[in-house]
Amino acid sequence: MSPAGPDGPPADGTPASPVRVTDPDDPAIALFRDVKERDRIGRQGIFIAEGLSVLTVLLTRSPLETLAILVEESRVDRLPVLAERGTAPLYVAPQAVLDGIAGFHLHRGILAAGRVPAPRPLSALPHGPLRLPVCVNLANHDNVGGIYRNAAAFGAAGVAVDATTANPFYRKAIRVGAGAPLTVPTYAVGDDILGELREAGITPYALTPQAGASLGAAPLAARAAFLLGTEGPGLPDPLIGGCEPLAIRIAPGVDSLNVATTAGIVLHAHALQHGL
Amino acid sequence: MSPAGPDGPPADGTPASPVRVTDPDDPAIALFRDVKERDRIGRQGIFIAEGLSVLTVLLTRSPLETLAILVEESRVDRLPVLAERGTAPLYVAPQAVLDGIAGFHLHRGILAAGRVPAPRPLSALPHGPLRLPVCVNLANHDNVGGIYRNAAAFGAAGVAVDATTANPFYRKAIRVGAGAPLTVPTYAVGDDILGELREAGITPYALTPQAGASLGAAPLAARAAFLLGTEGPGLPDPLIGGCEPLAIRIAPGVDSLNVATTAGIVLHAHALQHGL
Repeated sequence: MSPAGPDGPPADGTPASPVRVTDPDDPAIALFRDVKERDRIGRQGIFIAEGLSVLTVLLTRSPLETLAILVEESRVDRLPVLAERGTAPLYVAPQAVLDGIAGFHLHRGILAAGRVPAPRPLSALPHGPLRLPVCVNLANHDNVGGIYRNAAAFGAAGVAVDATTANPFYRKAIRVGAGAPLTVPTYAVGDDILGELREAGITPYALTPQAGASLGAAPLAARAAFLLGTEGPGLPDPLIGGCEPLAIRIAPGVDSLNVATTAGIVLHAHALQHGL
Repeated sequence: MSPAGPDGPPADGTPASPVRVTDPDDPAIALFRDVKERDRIGRQGIFIAEGLSVLTVLLTRSPLETLAILVEESRVDRLPVLAERGTAPLYVAPQAVLDGIAGFHLHRGILAAGRVPAPRPLSALPHGPLRLPVCVNLANHDNVGGIYRNAAAFGAAGVAVDATTANPFYRKAIRVGAGAPLTVPTYAVGDDILGELREAGITPYALTPQAGASLGAAPLAARAAFLLGTEGPGLPDPLIGGCEPLAIRIAPGVDSLNVATTAGIVLHAHALQHGL
């Protein structure tokens, strides 16, 4: 049991007082224990947000539920954003206890846990013009985070991910994404990506360096999905065959663009044509 | 002394045979010792390239001198690119010796050392149309590497860096940049960035979200420099005041774009207007 558990939030909805933790094994902060090891094995529907900028996104701009916050105690008074925590419990601890809980030196001194939303089907997308990056078998968390960040910047309706793409709610994807996985809706696509997009009335573009048509030369459909594959092998040919292929022209001899940069360029181009 | 030093390359320029290293303290591979610690304290004019894709760039597309290569011994026969090493000595070692040399587990199993080129002054830039990202006080190696990668992709004349920008020849910048710091020329700018650009006949654009003019609405000068500042504080006001300010429009409530993505978008736009 927690030696100093909160008595629950006050009935008027103002945040409850911080609870000081002195024992890394305190069950109250079990959500935050062994952060990296649990990153590896996966959590059941929980994400971990790290650092001030991501905490700020979570508390001020994200619709997702915050389950708990854990902060190095000397920082609390310099974090006015904590006033936005609602009924989420706030735990504070000395740095050494924090490091003992997390299992590594937590130099940012700030962790929050929240609930991963259920992914939406494409049928839940809004009507009208929209842009949607579709991640196909993207294994790199930094790239997935970067795609969410660009989706947020250029007003994408969401980000669609297939079953083999890296989890956007993994700690590092959230951090590299500047918190965007907590604000941009996640849509799930199954094996029949093209069928699902057709059903939703969305034109699929395959970003591929081999395409004859290049970005900047042609108008883009108002409802557009941009399929993004890994930087080496790219998108599978059958998928490209069912899409409008689209190239971002690069200099001869250069292998490829970073896939998050590719997303940024094509989403920006669509926003220029159809408005943010 | 090396227990099995090479006898020097054959006179016909074909590569010398690999030299097997069994002692992490062998002076022959001193260049590769304690990689991370030397990353921290800095090297005297030497860079370390890591992994196959960067090695390939170094040996096949970079004008820079390769000083030595060190590879985990079981990989050598699967690395045809090593035939391109010219007179650079090739050392091979078992994984455990490799890890002992590098000071950490070198899971990529491939290191190369090369010579950092002297940075060029802007007066050495070619005549005619060109695009040039200018890094102003960019502390993050990943971002600097990403800017070089985009500079390579969109045919920039080089990348200019000021004295406070992170070293593009740092191992991680080279890796994140997919080797582009080894192919794209580095130009150094001093305190009077705007004076140096004016002298070189280059129009300076300041990328800043507050600009009235936005990318996509206006033609860009044929000889154009794009000043890029840190994502939080951005460029200093006096610098913006001397430039054509230029915004990439993003959705309300979103803090900023990643600076490497910003570089990619603006370099792509310039290439569309003036050719790759």
